[in-house]
Amino acid sequence: MAADPNCIFCKIAAGDIPSTTVLDSPLAIAFLDVGPLADGHVLLIPRDHYERLDQMPADVFGQVAALLPKLGSALQRVAGVDAYNVLQNNGAAAGQEVGHVHFHLIPRCPGDGLGYRWNAKSYAAGRADELAARFSELLD
Amino acid sequence: MAADPNCIFCKIAAGDIPSTTVLDSPLAIAFLDVGPLADGHVLLIPRDHYERLDQMPADVFGQVAALLPKLGSALQRVAGVDAYNVLQNNGAAAGQEVGHVHFHLIPRCPGDGLGYRWNAKSYAAGRADELAARFSELLD
Repeated sequence: MAADPNCIFCKIAAGDIPSTTVLDSPLAIAFLDVGPLADGHVLLIPRDHYERLDQMPADVFGQVAALLPKLGSALQRVAGVDAYNVLQNNGAAAGQEVGHVHFHLIPRCPGDGLGYRWNAKSYAAGRADELAARFSELLD
Repeated sequence: MAADPNCIFCKIAAGDIPSTTVLDSPLAIAFLDVGPLADGHVLLIPRDHYERLDQMPADVFGQVAALLPKLGSALQRVAGVDAYNVLQNNGAAAGQEVGHVHFHLIPRCPGDGLGYRWNAKSYAAGRADELAARFSELLD
């Protein structure tokens, strides 16, 4: 997959826009978010341009994601925390602002005011089975 | 890694607690969250017990994560949305409620009131380089 000439993350991956890189591998790079939610907030991106995760070949996505354990481990030591969120947004309605797959790793500490808005509901009788049947049609 | 006898997700993976399974693979399963944030909210978990992602071997984590593209693709069709968040929490301060690695896949639509609380800041001069140097010590 070629680079997208209009994509800021492609330009960062190519070194055409400077970034504060923290991890550099053949398939992916990680760098500090310039608008961090917390000190040490990093982004992990594939070098190649894919807009959304569901557009990535499973093996490529898996190899990029395989960098997360060591990145998460380092993040905790650098930020001096024992908790972090991994967040990956797909689509504008999900808050995706750059159309190039990226994982946010966000250090967390108690009372920081961050986190996902949680407003859980429950399924009416039969609804869960109905949804699961549709998933099965697509995934089996 | 053995199952943890006190872990609800290990019991779900073993079939000892029922769940609405949507994907079943040798290394991982996905099932509907019983307290969904939106219709079709699913969890993807490794079958083996690991509390946090940084405790998982990179290759195992990569193979589990490699299921996300097809799961994300199916999720959009089942939920009838074109956006979703992937969220993975590590540690109590990050909102992790079950101590077994899990990815949330959360369907999103405009005005749903969900999403991550975003309160970006910026780094004082020199701070980003300081953090990056610490990452490099750990990751190079």
